[in-house]
Amino acid sequence: MKPIKVGLLGIGTVGRGTFEVLLRNQAEIIRRAGRPIEITTVADVDVARASAIVGQHAKVVASGLDVVQDPEIDVVVELIGGMGIAKELMIKAIEAGKHVVTANKALIAVHGNEIFALAAQRGVMVCFEAAVAGGIPIIKSLREGLSANKIQWVAGIINGTTNFILSEMRDKGLSFEHVLKQAQALGYAEADPTFDIEGNDAAHKATIIASLSFGVALQYKQAFVQGITQLQAQDIRYAEQLGYRIKLLGLTKRVENGIELRVHPCLVPSKSLIANVEGAMNAVMVHADAVGTTLFYGKGAGSEPTASAVIADLVDIARLQSLTAAERVPYLGFHPKEISALQVLPMSQVVTSYYLRLRVADQTGVLAQVTGLLAESQISIDAVLQRAASEGESQTDLIILTHHCQESLMNEALAKIQPLPSILAPIVLIRKEELS
Amino acid sequence: MKPIKVGLLGIGTVGRGTFEVLLRNQAEIIRRAGRPIEITTVADVDVARASAIVGQHAKVVASGLDVVQDPEIDVVVELIGGMGIAKELMIKAIEAGKHVVTANKALIAVHGNEIFALAAQRGVMVCFEAAVAGGIPIIKSLREGLSANKIQWVAGIINGTTNFILSEMRDKGLSFEHVLKQAQALGYAEADPTFDIEGNDAAHKATIIASLSFGVALQYKQAFVQGITQLQAQDIRYAEQLGYRIKLLGLTKRVENGIELRVHPCLVPSKSLIANVEGAMNAVMVHADAVGTTLFYGKGAGSEPTASAVIADLVDIARLQSLTAAERVPYLGFHPKEISALQVLPMSQVVTSYYLRLRVADQTGVLAQVTGLLAESQISIDAVLQRAASEGESQTDLIILTHHCQESLMNEALAKIQPLPSILAPIVLIRKEELS
Repeated sequence: MKPIKVGLLGIGTVGRGTFEVLLRNQAEIIRRAGRPIEITTVADVDVARASAIVGQHAKVVASGLDVVQDPEIDVVVELIGGMGIAKELMIKAIEAGKHVVTANKALIAVHGNEIFALAAQRGVMVCFEAAVAGGIPIIKSLREGLSANKIQWVAGIINGTTNFILSEMRDKGLSFEHVLKQAQALGYAEADPTFDIEGNDAAHKATIIASLSFGVALQYKQAFVQGITQLQAQDIRYAEQLGYRIKLLGLTKRVENGIELRVHPCLVPSKSLIANVEGAMNAVMVHADAVGTTLFYGKGAGSEPTASAVIADLVDIARLQSLTAAERVPYLGFHPKEISALQVLPMSQVVTSYYLRLRVADQTGVLAQVTGLLAESQISIDAVLQRAASEGESQTDLIILTHHCQESLMNEALAKIQPLPSILAPIVLIRKEELS
Repeated sequence: MKPIKVGLLGIGTVGRGTFEVLLRNQAEIIRRAGRPIEITTVADVDVARASAIVGQHAKVVASGLDVVQDPEIDVVVELIGGMGIAKELMIKAIEAGKHVVTANKALIAVHGNEIFALAAQRGVMVCFEAAVAGGIPIIKSLREGLSANKIQWVAGIINGTTNFILSEMRDKGLSFEHVLKQAQALGYAEADPTFDIEGNDAAHKATIIASLSFGVALQYKQAFVQGITQLQAQDIRYAEQLGYRIKLLGLTKRVENGIELRVHPCLVPSKSLIANVEGAMNAVMVHADAVGTTLFYGKGAGSEPTASAVIADLVDIARLQSLTAAERVPYLGFHPKEISALQVLPMSQVVTSYYLRLRVADQTGVLAQVTGLLAESQISIDAVLQRAASEGESQTDLIILTHHCQESLMNEALAKIQPLPSILAPIVLIRKEELS
């Protein structure tokens, strides 16, 4: 099928990620989208740097105008950021009848109403999954996945920099200033971190979330915004003692006569899932009348997580160009002709790690015997927990955690261990996954 | 715009939820879908009961055939369950050119390949968001939200009954048999719980997840399935001591020469988010090359959470009937003409709860004075933490957590408290949300 031709504006961190992921996962993406998605032209002020990245795969131009006016291009991806030239080019792209994909939260939060009005007039899509919470498909979930609901409130950790700083302040009892410097050194905070630490970035995202949740116009100027610069380590400690953690939340609620839209440090119960979202991770909680509470967690920033969202928007656009139901909404997420013949492996070929509990005679040498037989099957041991036998007892439990091995090797080892005279009951095996 | 006419097969728990949520949220759903979605006919063997539920809102018939053959109906929603009549009617609906929405995981996992082949031939959509993890939009996230990625593995708590049982066994140190009886009494487990506790239900869902993740045919028969009936309380305790919790996971991985597809009890690190998914809740972790790890959490069963997913599929179908880009993928999730004028409220009108830290003189009567002024503004107190002054110190910290009040009342109270001679520094105010 005819490829979707994409013009990319700006090949900085996210632009580069988008370019590279599209290329790396080309085969998989064609299977999903039903047609190739090709970046044919890249516009960047630094032509030399851009050319070094894209090589022979795309044309590089210095001016975005050459992209938005190119009749060959179907979709323009705006990854310049900011409100100046980015806005100008996006408007021109829409006027030229091109679909637009952007990661520009500031632009959408501040000028979205105007942009969408123009796009509706011109009959083009404007997609901005990457603008909120990076790789987490929260825009799609609010726009489509939860569309049955009256949404009541949404609360999100939607700025990774501030969540990293707050996590470190709490973990290590350090001051804001100290951790900020550390975050800058590690690349978790920008040289000028104002937009993050003062809450503006979170407010842009919360503004977009509010509109998607309640069907109201974007009202960034009305948002209440308070950052974390005034937060003191002692308040984090006191909150902890009272059973709370402090997070910078983007919050929006539907109340009787309006909506609340606010970004500020907030105590949340320590036991709640959202309180346990640590470091630079993002999470968005949605409370709605039919579904109850849902939570969406993942990386909210970074080159490839953001690229993931940008490309998902491109795949959506590609699918919507298709004529048949099976191509527009492929039943199994892949074009029906692209279902692979890959088979489910038998359990013996599965590789995982294990918890073993052995009821053993309380006598010297049992542990050596068991671990010896495991070693014979190339199974290495991660941890051992041996209970001392209770008084008057002659047997005890031996617990072993193993590292990864193929299940056939584990079966082989157990076939040798189980018959040992010192093994007094059937061995209990439970599989273990670190999920990391 | 022309309404979407829906025929509902089966009005049991989920059918009733679907009917009721569609009716209750009618106005909101029209704003989102761009047109009304109306259940015009309900088929159920118990006509009297069905009629009592739907009243004048829909026609009730005894035979599903009257629905799937009705030329007036655009979409058939199958909520009968099982593989007998449900399959027969679904096939007939597809043959009649109708789009189909279902919550039937068994039917999709076992007969999906055949159903999708027929649907592709007839050019209709088959949507089944409700088949996996109830109200969590995980099908959509895998099919669309993460479409840029090579997915590496997915691990899910996708059966609420078993997660409830495991949570109780761990919390209370009880045996499987004991907790199962309790779960049945509470309605968390069916009278015949076999499909849940033996892992078959989770395996149906894991089978669907595997196909959506890797683009392979549905291979339910090849899945490895082990339930929780053999799990002993002592292994849960030992796992805990080693830093793990035991969860029934549905797991699927892409490995070099095939895919893994397995359901079994599994140790997961106690600190991981998924280990902290308690009770009947569901969560699905997805690990993919560009986005990294994401997690989707929510209610995996129940009338309205499942209805939320069924209706989301209906909204998708309704939107795809539309002609313009702005209607198919509405920029802000609502039809452009349906953006409401609801305004963001000023912060003074926001209602929330508060953490206050006051630096106070260590003298009698200060607490009474402060709480008295809060009470004057109708602010009630949730908790107080008063530090004893260190030796030689004449001042100390007074921490107060309040219940909900309007921020204007808090401002009023603080304006009276701050000037008191016993208040020695600016009062620290941080807002607090229980998010429950």
